Amino acid sequence: MQLELTPPDPRLAPLLQQRIDEKTKPPGALGRLESLALQIGLIQGSQHPEIRQPQVVVFAGDHGAARAGVSAFPQDVTWQMVENFLQGGAAINVFCRQFGLGLSVVDAGVNHDFGKRPGLVDAKLRKSTHNYLETPAMSPDEAQQALARGRKLAHDLAGNGCNLLGLGEMGIGNTASASLITHCLTGQPLADVVGRGTGLDDAGLARKRALLEQAVARGGRPATPLEVLAEYGGFEIAMMAGAMLGAAERRMLVLVDGFIVTSALLVAHALAPAVLPYCVFAHRSQEAGHRIQLQHLNADPLMDLDLRLGEGTGAALAYPLIQAAVGFLNDMASFSAAGVSTAG
Amino acid sequence: MQLELTPPDPRLAPLLQQRIDEKTKPPGALGRLESLALQIGLIQGSQHPEIRQPQVVVFAGDHGAARAGVSAFPQDVTWQMVENFLQGGAAINVFCRQFGLGLSVVDAGVNHDFGKRPGLVDAKLRKSTHNYLETPAMSPDEAQQALARGRKLAHDLAGNGCNLLGLGEMGIGNTASASLITHCLTGQPLADVVGRGTGLDDAGLARKRALLEQAVARGGRPATPLEVLAEYGGFEIAMMAGAMLGAAERRMLVLVDGFIVTSALLVAHALAPAVLPYCVFAHRSQEAGHRIQLQHLNADPLMDLDLRLGEGTGAALAYPLIQAAVGFLNDMASFSAAGVSTAG
Repeated sequence: MQLELTPPDPRLAPLLQQRIDEKTKPPGALGRLESLALQIGLIQGSQHPEIRQPQVVVFAGDHGAARAGVSAFPQDVTWQMVENFLQGGAAINVFCRQFGLGLSVVDAGVNHDFGKRPGLVDAKLRKSTHNYLETPAMSPDEAQQALARGRKLAHDLAGNGCNLLGLGEMGIGNTASASLITHCLTGQPLADVVGRGTGLDDAGLARKRALLEQAVARGGRPATPLEVLAEYGGFEIAMMAGAMLGAAERRMLVLVDGFIVTSALLVAHALAPAVLPYCVFAHRSQEAGHRIQLQHLNADPLMDLDLRLGEGTGAALAYPLIQAAVGFLNDMASFSAAGVSTAG
Repeated sequence: MQLELTPPDPRLAPLLQQRIDEKTKPPGALGRLESLALQIGLIQGSQHPEIRQPQVVVFAGDHGAARAGVSAFPQDVTWQMVENFLQGGAAINVFCRQFGLGLSVVDAGVNHDFGKRPGLVDAKLRKSTHNYLETPAMSPDEAQQALARGRKLAHDLAGNGCNLLGLGEMGIGNTASASLITHCLTGQPLADVVGRGTGLDDAGLARKRALLEQAVARGGRPATPLEVLAEYGGFEIAMMAGAMLGAAERRMLVLVDGFIVTSALLVAHALAPAVLPYCVFAHRSQEAGHRIQLQHLNADPLMDLDLRLGEGTGAALAYPLIQAAVGFLNDMASFSAAGVSTAG
């Protein structure tokens, strides 16, 4: 995959900072919103950035290892939740409606036949990955295909005028896959990056840890991000990594959700570090390994709400802060325009 | 002041919790939003709570001590910023517009003649408090009047159908007043609750600390919240305390902003502890003393964005999370309705 990906041009930074400092507020008083405004201005190369057709895309996929018992929920919940998304009844639907975000769902590899459905993008590679306890989850060629499909999806969104992509996922067993990817790409001990997912009890967590140790005993710790994806990945995770890369190529803002989305970013970042300045980290997930991912990426999320739902819910909840950052930059009065005295 | 203030009836809690747990998500996966939904349901005594006519009210007042140099900005900035609010150019205007919040400004005691203006409520007690370095800031009778006016204002809002009050303030010198109130009502050392306000440098901070030590050497640490208000208060702080009490009497949700609003809550809480369960703490301010206030009230704010602007900006920024909490409770599908399997 030949990426056309460069970091944002920093030359506008002093002008943007001046514009931020002229607003009627003490310098720095809007805290994180000020650095957000600067980041978004740089990404768009504009002193007057605007968010157009913001879109959350939920990538769904099934995992062969789910049937081995790495999750508290049965595998059928993946397709059942996709149906719930399509009916508008899930948390991500509610938040996207409330905040004016578009929402689409991508079948990256769900173990179900949905047929043609409004709101559902068919990008299915296969009905679930293989069980990485026995064999690699996918072939290197499938990993490449998934990346390419995700990338094209982002390019298509950009072509339709969207400049903000929020990423979400659904896939029973995908925190396990994310843990394996995180172990491989950060080098941190597996035990430290395996958590309770959707809510395993102590016995379930111990079982998940043992199973993932078994997986690593079989598959090792591959050297390249593509091999890591092939060995342990999910189709939804690979597609999200591709979508992030495609979004950054098109200078879109990427809203990163929690643990699983960040595992996709670890892959994207290993492939092209320049993806990182396009990302905003929405929230700190309750899932244990998320902290390790964030440290690895030197990232500090906007919110910490003890979320662990996935679906892109954290990304959607952070969207109003993006609006606020862009809003103050464009719509606040300056000291001179408002006739307000500056600090003595 | 005879308050009719009782804590929310807890009897609905099990039913609300059951409703939350039936939603299509792992139990607890929406983290803080779940406890918010429970709180709002209890406040409204409803399994189907709704936010009606949410309103931010910015209370503005001047401080006699401002002329002694406790702030980085000149006193005129108070009325200039009120003009900015009325023109729609301040940060709070931008955020209220973006999130669909009503906004009004209360002149609690600004050193300026505004005349009759749309969006401005004239509740002025006097043009600025006295300088507490020399004499009490206001009389006990004025403190009572300010509380009563704030309370009536909340009652009037409730009468018009509003059930969410976000509080904000503007007043050059009011972090100093808030520090003195916090020192008196938490018993923590003055030095620990004095901060940089709108942006004092080290020399400015040292000067502010010395001035406030002087104030305490004169006025002491009064025994009752009313005396504390009279000794060191601002009219805007006293009025906010009254508004919180009035809002809680009418079972409104109270969105608490940062350091200065929380100093008003310390007063309200000392007068009537039952005000607390009606409050949602929006954000953790960068101002040093805020942490001490939050510890005293055993409060954990929703966000931590390094804000230190005031105006109710933190409250406005937290409002989408309130919407999300109410939204998921009302609009998400249940496991049974969506046909989704539960945890094994």
